[in-house]
Amino acid sequence: MASTAAGEEVPNKRVVLKHYVTGFPSADAMEVLTGTASLAVPPGSSAMVVKNLYISCDPYMRDRMTKHERPSYVPEFVLGEDLITNLCYKSLWPPPFRWYKFICLQTLVNFGVCKVTASGHSDYKVGDLVWGVTGWEEYTLVTEPESFFKIHHPELPLSYYTGVLGMPGLTAWAGFFQVGKPKKGDYVFVSAASGAVGQLVGQLAKLTGCYVVGSAGSDEKVNLLKNKFGFDEAFNYKKEADLDATLRRYFPEGIDIYFESVGGPTLEAVLENMRPHGRIPAVGMISQYNLEEKHGVRNIFQVVAKRLRMEGLLVFDYYSDYYKFEEEMAGYLKEGKISYVEDIAEGLEEAPAALIGLFTGRNVGKQLVAVARV
Amino acid sequence: MASTAAGEEVPNKRVVLKHYVTGFPSADAMEVLTGTASLAVPPGSSAMVVKNLYISCDPYMRDRMTKHERPSYVPEFVLGEDLITNLCYKSLWPPPFRWYKFICLQTLVNFGVCKVTASGHSDYKVGDLVWGVTGWEEYTLVTEPESFFKIHHPELPLSYYTGVLGMPGLTAWAGFFQVGKPKKGDYVFVSAASGAVGQLVGQLAKLTGCYVVGSAGSDEKVNLLKNKFGFDEAFNYKKEADLDATLRRYFPEGIDIYFESVGGPTLEAVLENMRPHGRIPAVGMISQYNLEEKHGVRNIFQVVAKRLRMEGLLVFDYYSDYYKFEEEMAGYLKEGKISYVEDIAEGLEEAPAALIGLFTGRNVGKQLVAVARV
Repeated sequence: MASTAAGEEVPNKRVVLKHYVTGFPSADAMEVLTGTASLAVPPGSSAMVVKNLYISCDPYMRDRMTKHERPSYVPEFVLGEDLITNLCYKSLWPPPFRWYKFICLQTLVNFGVCKVTASGHSDYKVGDLVWGVTGWEEYTLVTEPESFFKIHHPELPLSYYTGVLGMPGLTAWAGFFQVGKPKKGDYVFVSAASGAVGQLVGQLAKLTGCYVVGSAGSDEKVNLLKNKFGFDEAFNYKKEADLDATLRRYFPEGIDIYFESVGGPTLEAVLENMRPHGRIPAVGMISQYNLEEKHGVRNIFQVVAKRLRMEGLLVFDYYSDYYKFEEEMAGYLKEGKISYVEDIAEGLEEAPAALIGLFTGRNVGKQLVAVARV
Repeated sequence: MASTAAGEEVPNKRVVLKHYVTGFPSADAMEVLTGTASLAVPPGSSAMVVKNLYISCDPYMRDRMTKHERPSYVPEFVLGEDLITNLCYKSLWPPPFRWYKFICLQTLVNFGVCKVTASGHSDYKVGDLVWGVTGWEEYTLVTEPESFFKIHHPELPLSYYTGVLGMPGLTAWAGFFQVGKPKKGDYVFVSAASGAVGQLVGQLAKLTGCYVVGSAGSDEKVNLLKNKFGFDEAFNYKKEADLDATLRRYFPEGIDIYFESVGGPTLEAVLENMRPHGRIPAVGMISQYNLEEKHGVRNIFQVVAKRLRMEGLLVFDYYSDYYKFEEEMAGYLKEGKISYVEDIAEGLEEAPAALIGLFTGRNVGKQLVAVARV
C-alpha cells in the first residue's frame, strides 16, 4: 500500500448485477466495471476500508439475484434505481446484510477475506486480516467493522476463511452438532456432499463415529468423498434413476440425520428413508433455486409418522460461537483430521462464471474467487 | 355384571374392516357383526377382560384402513387372511398397537374408555376404570394390561378420557408445550381448531398469554372457537379463496407457532406467513389422508429461510408424562379454565359413520362412540 496514501482515489474493479433474473441465471446478468474507490475513512467515522483478498461464491446468492415479491430472508441485490423500494425491507434483514445496502449500491456483496487498509475503529488496525460480508470489488468501505471477525490463524491458507474456517464451516458445524444432535453410530446422509458445507459435515460425522454416505453430481466428486474425505459410501445421484431405492440400499436401517442442502425430489426420497426421531438440519435447497415452478414435496406427512425434526438454520444465529468454532476447526486442520478442497477462480473477471458454476455443479469443492493476494 | 359370571360366553358386537380402502373411505368398508366373547381370563395369564364404554374416532385411523406398500407408523387393520404378511411389520409398531394384532383380528382397534370385568393382573381389579387401546366391540380380552392408564377423575365425564383427558389431550399438551415451546405474546395459528386436539391447543395457548387464531370448516365451528373456546379470532377456511392472504390479514406480524393437523395447501400458506424461528408441532395432516395423489408442498425452503423448526410427534413418546398431564388438565376442567365439546354417537352401529364423518367434517368437537354406559 506504499503507493496509495490514505485519501487517494484508486481504480476499483467491481461486479454488478445488471438485471434481476428468473429461472436459470447466466453470467451475463452480471458485469465487471471499473470505477474508483477512496482509500480514506470519512473524517470522524468509525468505518474502515478493506482490500478484498478472497470472495466466496455461495448458493444462497441466487435468491438475491431475483426481485422478491415479498421480503425474503436476505434482500435482493440492489440495482441502484431500486433503492427506495428496498428500504422497506430493512427490518427483515439480518444485520450483516443491512449495512451494505448503503455503501455497495450496485455492487454484489458476500462473505470475503480482507485486509484492513484504513480504519477509524479502535478495534481494527491497518494490516489486520478479517472476514465478513464485503463487496465484490477490490476495495470496500465498511461502515460497521464490528460485523467482521478477526482471523486468528493466518498460518493456514487465508482463503480457508471463505470456507472451512468461515461461513460454510460454521454452518456445517452448527448444523451438524447443534441441530443434528448426532450420536455415535448414527446413520448420516449428506447431499451436495463435496461442496463447501457437505465435505465438512461428512468429516465431522466420521469424527463423531457415525456411518456417512454422501451424494454428489460427478464420479470425480464421488471419488473425493470416498478417498479424500473418508465417507463410508458415496454415489453419483445423476446415475441413480430411483433415489428412494438407492437410499434404501445404502441405508437398510434408515437415516438418523439428513443434512439438507438440496431439497426437491432428494428431500422426498430421504423422507421415505428416515428413521423414527430422525433430524434434518436444513441449510439450503440448491435444486430449487433456479426453478420457476418449485418441486412440491408430497410426503411431508413422514414428519408426523416418524416424529422427525426438520430445522432450518442460518449462520448468523451462531455467530457468538464463531471463535470457539475457529479454534476447534483450526486444530482439526493442523492435525490432519479434516481435509478440505477448494476451487479457486482467479480475478474478479472470473467471479460471475464462478458463481453461476455452482448451479451446474462445475466447481469441485468450495468455490471462491481470489481478488488479490495479501 | 351380575348376570354374566366369569367364564360365561356372551354376545359380542364388533366392528370389522371388510376390505382395504383407497381414496375417500365409505362407511360400507366396515361392518358390524355379532359374535361371542368369553368373560374369563385364560387360566394363569395376566390378561384382563374389559367392557368397552366409549371408543374414540381419530383421524389417524384412516392410515390403518389402507394396505401399506411399506411399513407405516401404525400397522394397517388386519382383515384376517393377512395375518402372516403383517407379522413382518411388528418391530416398527409402537407398543400399544403391537399387542392387539393377536387378539383383535378382524376387529378395529383404537383408544377407548373401559371397565375391567375380569383380571389376572395384580394391578388391575374388577371394576377399575381404565383407558387405552381396545377393540371396537363390547368386550375385549387385553393381553397387556400395563398399556392401560388408570382413570383418577371418574367424577368428570368418563367420555373425556377419549379426548381432553386422553390421547388427544396429551397430544395437544405435549405438542404445544414441549414442541411448540410457547412464550407469552406469541402468535399462534391452529388448524382443525374445533377438533379434539385443536380446541385444547387454542385454550392452552390463551392460558399461556398467546394471541390465537383458529380455522375450521363451518360457521358453527367458527362460532364455537370464538364464543366457547375463547380464540381471539377464527375463520371458516371454506369461505377463504386465498388462504395466504387470509393469514396475512389475521397475522400481520406473522405466526410464531403453527399447530399442524391439516397439511397440504394449508401448510403451504402457513409457511409463507411464519415468523423467523417459528415452530410447527405436527400431529397430523388430515387434508391428505384420502388423496391418492398427495399435495406437493412447494415452499419447504421457508424452513431454511426463516429458521423454522417443524417437528412431528406421536403421543406414545409422552406417555411417561400422562399422570402429570391428567392432574393438570383435570384441574383446568374443574376450575372452568378449559371448555370441551364432544360429539357422541350412540352405539357400535353408528361407529363406521362416525369415523367417516371426521373426513367430511361432520363432527362438531371431539368425535366418539358410546358403546355402553358404566
